[in-house]
Amino acid sequence: MNRRIVIFVLALIGAIVAGSMLAAALCAAAFHWPDAQVLLACSLTSLAVCAVLALLNRQKRRKTDPPAHITGREAFVIVSLSWVIASCIGAFPYMFYRAGAGTGLSFTDAFFEAMSGFTTTGASILPRVEAFAPGVLLWRSLTHWLGGMGIIVLCLAIMPFIGGSGIELFKAESPTPIPEKLTPRLSQTALYLWLIYILLTVLEVVALKLCGMSVYDAVNHAFATMATGGFSTHSESIAYFKSPAIEWVVTLFMFLAGVNFTLHFLFLRGSFGAYFADDEFRWYAGITVIVTIAISLCALGANMAQPLSQTIRHAAFQTVTILTTTGFGVTDTLQWPYFVHLVLLLLMIIGGCAGSTGGGMKVLRVMVLTRSVKNDMLKTLQPRRVLCVRVGGKPQETELVRSIMAFFVMFMILLGAMSLALTWMDIDLISSFSGVLACLSNIGPGLGQFGPVSNYASVPTCGKWILSFAMLIGRLEITTVMMLFLPSTWRR
Amino acid sequence: MNRRIVIFVLALIGAIVAGSMLAAALCAAAFHWPDAQVLLACSLTSLAVCAVLALLNRQKRRKTDPPAHITGREAFVIVSLSWVIASCIGAFPYMFYRAGAGTGLSFTDAFFEAMSGFTTTGASILPRVEAFAPGVLLWRSLTHWLGGMGIIVLCLAIMPFIGGSGIELFKAESPTPIPEKLTPRLSQTALYLWLIYILLTVLEVVALKLCGMSVYDAVNHAFATMATGGFSTHSESIAYFKSPAIEWVVTLFMFLAGVNFTLHFLFLRGSFGAYFADDEFRWYAGITVIVTIAISLCALGANMAQPLSQTIRHAAFQTVTILTTTGFGVTDTLQWPYFVHLVLLLLMIIGGCAGSTGGGMKVLRVMVLTRSVKNDMLKTLQPRRVLCVRVGGKPQETELVRSIMAFFVMFMILLGAMSLALTWMDIDLISSFSGVLACLSNIGPGLGQFGPVSNYASVPTCGKWILSFAMLIGRLEITTVMMLFLPSTWRR
Repeated sequence: MNRRIVIFVLALIGAIVAGSMLAAALCAAAFHWPDAQVLLACSLTSLAVCAVLALLNRQKRRKTDPPAHITGREAFVIVSLSWVIASCIGAFPYMFYRAGAGTGLSFTDAFFEAMSGFTTTGASILPRVEAFAPGVLLWRSLTHWLGGMGIIVLCLAIMPFIGGSGIELFKAESPTPIPEKLTPRLSQTALYLWLIYILLTVLEVVALKLCGMSVYDAVNHAFATMATGGFSTHSESIAYFKSPAIEWVVTLFMFLAGVNFTLHFLFLRGSFGAYFADDEFRWYAGITVIVTIAISLCALGANMAQPLSQTIRHAAFQTVTILTTTGFGVTDTLQWPYFVHLVLLLLMIIGGCAGSTGGGMKVLRVMVLTRSVKNDMLKTLQPRRVLCVRVGGKPQETELVRSIMAFFVMFMILLGAMSLALTWMDIDLISSFSGVLACLSNIGPGLGQFGPVSNYASVPTCGKWILSFAMLIGRLEITTVMMLFLPSTWRR
Repeated sequence: MNRRIVIFVLALIGAIVAGSMLAAALCAAAFHWPDAQVLLACSLTSLAVCAVLALLNRQKRRKTDPPAHITGREAFVIVSLSWVIASCIGAFPYMFYRAGAGTGLSFTDAFFEAMSGFTTTGASILPRVEAFAPGVLLWRSLTHWLGGMGIIVLCLAIMPFIGGSGIELFKAESPTPIPEKLTPRLSQTALYLWLIYILLTVLEVVALKLCGMSVYDAVNHAFATMATGGFSTHSESIAYFKSPAIEWVVTLFMFLAGVNFTLHFLFLRGSFGAYFADDEFRWYAGITVIVTIAISLCALGANMAQPLSQTIRHAAFQTVTILTTTGFGVTDTLQWPYFVHLVLLLLMIIGGCAGSTGGGMKVLRVMVLTRSVKNDMLKTLQPRRVLCVRVGGKPQETELVRSIMAFFVMFMILLGAMSLALTWMDIDLISSFSGVLACLSNIGPGLGQFGPVSNYASVPTCGKWILSFAMLIGRLEITTVMMLFLPSTWRR
């Protein structure tokens, strides 16, 4: 492995993260928020360290040398570690900002919060979000926004010189098989993705402002929504605003964030039928509608004494917030019937569409798995029949189907193993399982003691590291991170 | 589909079940138990009906005709329905025997109890087992024993004339891929399997008698142990006897019942190293030892104020009773730490060895899945490397590995879907999930309200039918039963 290039690229990525923090710091300084100094100090220090590391490890090559090439092995290491480094840098403001007479967070807590931000999980260890000054909270939402579309995608968009060898990085960060590419050139694809992302974010800010949110809250919530993150500037999350209009707007934009961005691209280019022509989108929309109806019916049956419009609104909000792995809250779902709990748990496993900012298994994988199982049954009856799984009418390779099955098995094994570790710390079954699942699928709130109105503060230190790890492997879809544990990855 | 041959074979199977009930009835008559009459009436009526059906549908063929052949489709129908018919016949004694002034069970409850018996699940809807007379309880244990080795295997052993076309039936009843066959002739294989089964049962009766059990209890518990069933003649299950020796004997024989019977055959033929030479057995033994140690350590850490020997004995008993899917109880595991609950849930998914009387996914499948996932990770790093899953050193076909993955996916989908149905009936999450899993893996007791000291009496009627269905698809390893729902199975 070429260590120089790994450190060089990692330092560049660190610099981008620190640069983004500088933007938040300047914003805080402009508005005279009390945390401007802390943010400035953290961002400038990080920037300086990254710059030094980048300079020390830059490629000294004569013009005749071939350009340095990033191999698959290096890509796995760079991508996995870039998220860890981003979280370390992102953790500083939480550690050093002291609210009133209090002390900052411990490194474990701060790292958990930062990792939860970048991976768009939205799991928090803060009992009261309001303890932080506006600048730190803006940074908190910004980590979501950076992580949502992907740090590597951002790098490729703004540093096209990585370009040639970037495809390995891109694949390591977004391993979900996506049927189509936007453009043949990778840096251009990355740029288009970010432009669509920015456009949708701006639209949401405007929509939320029109519904009566302050600009500050609108920006923060738009960041968290479009990244399918879930951090809010209020402890009560979206419920704080008590506004049906805001709830519907957030539901709509969460839904859009969970859609494959290729479809948004096609739509903007003029193919207005792009959404419903897509196999995965039809499943995604279908699941949303069916689950919303099922939850509404169940809630009506349970006689929860609230108006019908509210029941439907909350059912739709909860369905979309969990399916897209955002994790905003409008109501304490633990008060709903058991059926709703289990439905939400199952939605957590499914997650958003491939190529969206959502986490989880992805609808595409669930679709392929279901079709593959159906074929398997037909084959038992007629062993000679040749069947293959089709996505959008196109037959898929057996190898792809097999790798998706292996992903599911690995997902389940990790879910079981990490839940075991949490129960060992005497956390009850439902909390352990749902907490690990909520982190692995990058959702945030789970059930039990990690429900929508509570948080992860009570988890022992060791458990917080396990959950941080779960967020990371969830965001990078397992394989990329697991590579770090194979000795052959590190061989020179 | 040839309906005549399906009805003919089903009638024969029904007659075998009714004949076994007659044996229990004669035993009851010999000892003047109060339920002799009921058992006699039920068994003779069933025998008569089956005999008439068999005569009406026998193959009328001239000597020049080829013998009737059972195809794959017919085999799936025969095997699935044979278990339903056996459960219907088996349910009669529970319905018609009236304990004291009480009434018999409803058809739903009786069918649940009978299906639980034949599928060796051991889930009960009886609050107090002792309400039944000894004859009915003997019949209850006997259903376990018949179902443990398999009704079809019994048919093949005693009615070799089905022979030629029996292989399809055998495959439909025992779909787990087993590396080796005992003998080339199927009816002989079936006979050997039953002889080993009988031998082990007799050994256990003797061992239990030596430990101080009455002959009646010893026979009943030996039936339930060797079938990995779990019905006891006492509400407190094995805990009733308060005897460490009995607990160890039962643990040992449960462990033996969960081993591939091919290994017992090889051992009896003189290859004493057969057990440890087997890949799957090493995993099975390894899981047992590791989990026993983990549970003991966890229990010691939780300071449960009981002697060390008792902790280890109960840990070993619980590990083996759940891993082999027997489901006997020695202690209320719900009082143990959460870690133990989750470990037991995960063991429930694994189950016994392929070719044993145990249920669940089977150790072999778990082994193949784990190895396949490991290969998948290595392949990501070195895409050109050719890797295949090996069992016992022999490379396995890709198609086999793929079908095992499909089985796992199907298992999880069914588990999720049936748990959803139960939560809809307002049964809490842990109870629903563990109850469905305990039935699907043919274990019996789950967690929550279906824990070791409670039962399934409180489930609504509809839920009991869902759980009965879960037991059936669990016992026949999903595909065979699912075939019934494909329209093409029923085409003439």
